[in-house]
Amino acid sequence: MSLRPPALAPSPRLRARRLGLFTQHEAIVLMRRDCHVCRSEGLSARARVLLTAGNREVYATLLQLDGDLIAHDEAALSEEAWRLLDVQPGDPIGVRHAPALESLSSVRRRIYGSRLDAPAMAAIVGDVAAGRYTDIHLAAFLTASSAMPLDEAETVALTQAMVDVGDRLTWDAPVVIDKHSIGGLPGNRTTPIVVAILTACGLMAPKTSSRAITSPAGTADTMETLAPVDLNLAAMRRVVEAEGGCLVWGGAVSLSPADDIFIRIERVLDVDTEGQLVASVLSKKIAAGSNHVVLDLPVGPTAKVRSEAAGQQLATRLTEVAARFGVKARCLLTDGSQPVGRGVGPALEAWDVLAVLQNLSDAPQDLRARACLLAGAALELAGAAVPGTGARLAEAVLADGRAWSKFQRICEAQGGMRTPPKAAVRSPILARRAGRVVLINNRQVATLAKLAGAPDRKAAGLTLEARLGDEVARGQPLLTVNAETSGELAYALDYATAHPDMIEIEA
Amino acid sequence: MSLRPPALAPSPRLRARRLGLFTQHEAIVLMRRDCHVCRSEGLSARARVLLTAGNREVYATLLQLDGDLIAHDEAALSEEAWRLLDVQPGDPIGVRHAPALESLSSVRRRIYGSRLDAPAMAAIVGDVAAGRYTDIHLAAFLTASSAMPLDEAETVALTQAMVDVGDRLTWDAPVVIDKHSIGGLPGNRTTPIVVAILTACGLMAPKTSSRAITSPAGTADTMETLAPVDLNLAAMRRVVEAEGGCLVWGGAVSLSPADDIFIRIERVLDVDTEGQLVASVLSKKIAAGSNHVVLDLPVGPTAKVRSEAAGQQLATRLTEVAARFGVKARCLLTDGSQPVGRGVGPALEAWDVLAVLQNLSDAPQDLRARACLLAGAALELAGAAVPGTGARLAEAVLADGRAWSKFQRICEAQGGMRTPPKAAVRSPILARRAGRVVLINNRQVATLAKLAGAPDRKAAGLTLEARLGDEVARGQPLLTVNAETSGELAYALDYATAHPDMIEIEA
Repeated sequence: MSLRPPALAPSPRLRARRLGLFTQHEAIVLMRRDCHVCRSEGLSARARVLLTAGNREVYATLLQLDGDLIAHDEAALSEEAWRLLDVQPGDPIGVRHAPALESLSSVRRRIYGSRLDAPAMAAIVGDVAAGRYTDIHLAAFLTASSAMPLDEAETVALTQAMVDVGDRLTWDAPVVIDKHSIGGLPGNRTTPIVVAILTACGLMAPKTSSRAITSPAGTADTMETLAPVDLNLAAMRRVVEAEGGCLVWGGAVSLSPADDIFIRIERVLDVDTEGQLVASVLSKKIAAGSNHVVLDLPVGPTAKVRSEAAGQQLATRLTEVAARFGVKARCLLTDGSQPVGRGVGPALEAWDVLAVLQNLSDAPQDLRARACLLAGAALELAGAAVPGTGARLAEAVLADGRAWSKFQRICEAQGGMRTPPKAAVRSPILARRAGRVVLINNRQVATLAKLAGAPDRKAAGLTLEARLGDEVARGQPLLTVNAETSGELAYALDYATAHPDMIEIEA
Repeated sequence: MSLRPPALAPSPRLRARRLGLFTQHEAIVLMRRDCHVCRSEGLSARARVLLTAGNREVYATLLQLDGDLIAHDEAALSEEAWRLLDVQPGDPIGVRHAPALESLSSVRRRIYGSRLDAPAMAAIVGDVAAGRYTDIHLAAFLTASSAMPLDEAETVALTQAMVDVGDRLTWDAPVVIDKHSIGGLPGNRTTPIVVAILTACGLMAPKTSSRAITSPAGTADTMETLAPVDLNLAAMRRVVEAEGGCLVWGGAVSLSPADDIFIRIERVLDVDTEGQLVASVLSKKIAAGSNHVVLDLPVGPTAKVRSEAAGQQLATRLTEVAARFGVKARCLLTDGSQPVGRGVGPALEAWDVLAVLQNLSDAPQDLRARACLLAGAALELAGAAVPGTGARLAEAVLADGRAWSKFQRICEAQGGMRTPPKAAVRSPILARRAGRVVLINNRQVATLAKLAGAPDRKAAGLTLEARLGDEVARGQPLLTVNAETSGELAYALDYATAHPDMIEIEA
């Protein structure tokens, strides 16, 4: 039950102050512990409050201050609160107890084992997208839907609710195609190549990508070393109308905003259950206006999907739920036993992409083959290739330079092509013994690249010098660490020393 | 996997600054976004960091600032971080990425349905008590153990772990008795009367109580209007040695500190499952050195326990788990259909307690009867009364003034008896129609008392003027709201107006 007075009493006011406080997603307001609002409203530290300015409302967490850092009549706002409330310094702000959220009773019912129907799911996702849930509520909802996994009806309802709370794009084409990898495999940067092939074949592929969440590089991070990616919706439309496709960052468009909030909590908990994954992937594709999707599910002992059976089950759920939204989906279970290509990190992966597009002799053939496989499946799914011939068509479009030419035009349309940076400091990790490479730990490779500075340092990451099955001599480089500063290089090398089995060699 | 470099590199240092920032339980550190530590460690907002000073370590959440509120070489600490780190202004503080917590893998396993053994539970509770879990982790653990309720073995393991992480008291007596109500019933302030009766009968009853969590008054809040309650362990021992019992606040002694952390999250989620409740109640009793416990379980439509069957099941679990720790427990299912006594709020309940102890003619008889019932059960459980005669003995000790005399001595020993305050402003809520009182909503009554200012304003709360079954005339007072300021009175009256069915009258 809310303690907020139900009457129409005006809520007590303070003056807005911008604090320059970075709190990630959470809107925070700082007030003097002895200010008149805290006293009259009976507010204590960490209370959830409702901030109002004009007709805007923001749920925020209250922190209190003693001392003179802020004045008695000030409400000092974190950057997130400032952005959402859209005020100017000194503007009056109302502060009161946040009302109770009806949707939390559905979360409680779900904890105790009741299935949620579509209206309940919509109410939850609506409150989540509006920033009304605290971390505690979010974690409870996600945990409850992991402890008793979402069934198909709940997954459909969650997907629909996640689509409904965000923007939704529409395109003037019968076939709008997308390609997505569920991740977990370092260097798996096929998207720029696939989009170049598909658009070169005349398909519409308005691709929005995310930045890295837990990986050393997201497609948007890599693309940013090749062209501007932070296009707004109007700019994105111009690129797609001109070239049939784009490769932009999805952050400027608000597609499935609840998903970004859920992902943040899932990352902390390191839980990523099927229902959430399906709703997360499909809600973004549906909101982006796609009606054909090819999904890459890498399977391997250190990938996200660990077994063929788990991959098949996930593929079935993805395809079935997609069909409920009129989206034709095709899932490809791919080899997830080792990183793809040579580079791991934004710029290093961009160099691999360029080598494939330009048909260079040292281009990583595994990346090329994967891109053709996925592009081929997409061409077949979209009806642009006869079944069984898609990969061959994709390979031809790549080989004759049409894909490379289209890729350059897309980059120019997005604001101009760039040359990816190269790292200032590099150091090899050497084989401690001679033998055959029998295992490459994807997770440790990703961590190593992150310690070297990826994705924030665009040039940082690593270059793999050996692959599964290779015979190596003692002292031969297994990989090279790339960093922008010697301090970051040292961190990464320390980690590599502490994890000698990152690349396992059998005599 | 932690991103913390594993090597022995010294962690970068900043100067400690006390910010006067109140964040409830959470240790927070504020640093400049562009300080050398954030840059070299790659720290972003809301990162979990490990703060070190001397041999002390504190897990904290990082918030970042732009601008000149703090200097580049400062780490500005919240009050909680300042207290835990125990530093002086300007002291050097180390800051680095917090290491990964091994116990979280057990939380993940529990989410996915695996039972936890005693070592896993101990590791979780150890990390919780040390402040290493964020709200996200805490909510996930509590949700997982609600979605699939704790079994008896897990409840025992959790109870043991919660006892082990805190202080543990020992007393030089064969029988140490305690009394506890699981709450949910406003005005149910029997403890001071029960302790007075038991100690007057020669039993040892070293009672520690909590302050209000969600209710308008905890026993410690009420007792504080009658005597000092914030005694440290040495002072508490002196009182118990002199008088055989005490009535102090448990906060100065660290009994089951993990419980306080769990309760905070349970309150936000409004989940309170059997296993957690049993571990919460019993861990505090065991840690306090009690070996006999009488438990009051009020049952009623708006009480915490809603049905006789649920009460019986909870009683069985409490008794069985208590036995595993050598504690004899007796549970009494009591009438939870309406508030107890007349006053609701710290001082108002204290006046009720005084009236019963002093045998005043207008003393609330329901409070007196409940206290005698519980004290009688305790006397029988402890072997100080023949079964069937306990309540009579309790009544006699109350009637002849021995309990009142003992109560005064305990208050004097704790630092001197006080007179509870009386409220400055009062206003009655009147019956809108004539008829019979058929329902009193415990939850709404509690909320009304809190809106009037309880428990922070000691004199605030309400006085019930009608009870279930009473015939009332139109315009007759049903209850009186007591407040310390007219603003708080207005809030409470607004709420009462909006909830006319708080006390239901049938014509």
